[in-house]
Amino acid sequence: MKIGIVGLGLIGGSVALDLRQRGFASSVIGTDSNPEHVRVAKQAGILQEEGSLSDLARGCDLIILATPVDVAPAILLSLLELASDKTIILDVGSTKEHICQAVEKHPRRKQFVACHPIAGTENTGPGAAHHGLFDNKVNIICNAADSDAHAVETAEELFACLKMETVHMDARAHDRHLAFVSHLSHITSFALGLTVLEIEKDEKSIFNLAGSGFASTVRLAKSSPAMWAPIFRQNAGHVSEALDAYIQQLLRFKEAIDQGMVTETYDMISRANHVSRVLSGIELKNKQNPPVKPAPTAE
Amino acid sequence: MKIGIVGLGLIGGSVALDLRQRGFASSVIGTDSNPEHVRVAKQAGILQEEGSLSDLARGCDLIILATPVDVAPAILLSLLELASDKTIILDVGSTKEHICQAVEKHPRRKQFVACHPIAGTENTGPGAAHHGLFDNKVNIICNAADSDAHAVETAEELFACLKMETVHMDARAHDRHLAFVSHLSHITSFALGLTVLEIEKDEKSIFNLAGSGFASTVRLAKSSPAMWAPIFRQNAGHVSEALDAYIQQLLRFKEAIDQGMVTETYDMISRANHVSRVLSGIELKNKQNPPVKPAPTAE
Repeated sequence: MKIGIVGLGLIGGSVALDLRQRGFASSVIGTDSNPEHVRVAKQAGILQEEGSLSDLARGCDLIILATPVDVAPAILLSLLELASDKTIILDVGSTKEHICQAVEKHPRRKQFVACHPIAGTENTGPGAAHHGLFDNKVNIICNAADSDAHAVETAEELFACLKMETVHMDARAHDRHLAFVSHLSHITSFALGLTVLEIEKDEKSIFNLAGSGFASTVRLAKSSPAMWAPIFRQNAGHVSEALDAYIQQLLRFKEAIDQGMVTETYDMISRANHVSRVLSGIELKNKQNPPVKPAPTAE
Repeated sequence: MKIGIVGLGLIGGSVALDLRQRGFASSVIGTDSNPEHVRVAKQAGILQEEGSLSDLARGCDLIILATPVDVAPAILLSLLELASDKTIILDVGSTKEHICQAVEKHPRRKQFVACHPIAGTENTGPGAAHHGLFDNKVNIICNAADSDAHAVETAEELFACLKMETVHMDARAHDRHLAFVSHLSHITSFALGLTVLEIEKDEKSIFNLAGSGFASTVRLAKSSPAMWAPIFRQNAGHVSEALDAYIQQLLRFKEAIDQGMVTETYDMISRANHVSRVLSGIELKNKQNPPVKPAPTAE
């Protein structure tokens, strides 16, 4: 199958590497608004051919849209116009309601499958792309009933080739869940990074005093603004709700600490400790062998 | 040298293992208020002998106080009463001003050295103790002028044997720095854990949707309440200040997101990205070979 990739960053690049190596893609045509990304991607063997959106629409069986979420809907609309009736188009963005709404009434809506393979690192660009990024992770397909059954099936085969389990979900539910389990933790890291950088002007004293705990908690603060600012904008309602809930928890900690209420602090920490069950679940999931062909799950 | 350890948890246990293996301790006498900790520590080869506080005070050349910080000052006062004029006592707690004040006027103040080896994991207890926990990390000695020069020198030799670099600092400055680079990041994780656990009642959906980013950010939420509630109490003023600064950053994010101010969000994320320099610094530090004998650093 000839695959087109729009957006040759960490995600687009890593998808291309594995699909080609594992035989799902016979060849990859790629495009990116940043010429430097194209150059690096070529060097890294991510694409076999560079092409315009029209080239991709004319020459590919399946196109994967892997740009930041702010530009994805407009590119998707162009691709739907340019492509043949048989071309399947997927996106892999971190918000799903906005892009689904943008094409809701489009006569070719059925050729589009809204996807979110949940994987990534705090590093960005084609230079960070690598094999195996998606192995044993979960892919979400949203609003599958609005897509052609064959297109959904092909998308599931593609993500199975990436060794992912596919789960089905409503786009709005996806965005709310992700606000809590992903978007919020990025903001907590950005804000922690800013707080410490503003107070500790002498970076050497941070190196000396910060342990591995700080490094782990602030790691996501390295994430790309070009990717994340648009995600927060598109998912503003749910992210704002998550931030409210989080700030309330912090204010409860602050009150307990200000009032010297050690039992309260102790209880809150003990309840937070339950997250270790969740962490074990995530670790266990990452260790499991992925299913050869994913069974769609209703949600 | 015969070493006593009060508090056989992750830190006390790991100190004992390395001091004995590396020949600094000829033998270790240990005590813990939790009999199960003593049992596990014995099995793990952490101590050669169990003893009371009096046994330690009478039988050891140097005693390391590795309990939670709320009970450390009272135990330190007892040990200073019970010990001979030659016994050196160190603590390894995460707050330093409180314990220094507690013994400020004590006639044997000079036998005490206030230390904070900055190392640890989110796991607790003697079962989590392991060799090499402190290698290439930093130890802080506070208010060294209040301690006997020989006691400080011995403490520095001990931490050099743990392959740590020792830095000197005022106790109050230590507590303020640590509020920002360590205590705050624990609260951000506890609060994130609580927020997600309260909203996502179905833990399976967290496993499915949370990526490695969430796991990294929330890892510290596994940390022990018995250790952390007393730290927050003893360092309440600085922790509260750090929390205030952090909540202000979150409110700035929330306002930008609520108002759809993408440029603002973009700028905040870009500034937070500078933390990558700090993270590289921490990584670099961890890779460096430690000095054989640390040179005291003025601060």
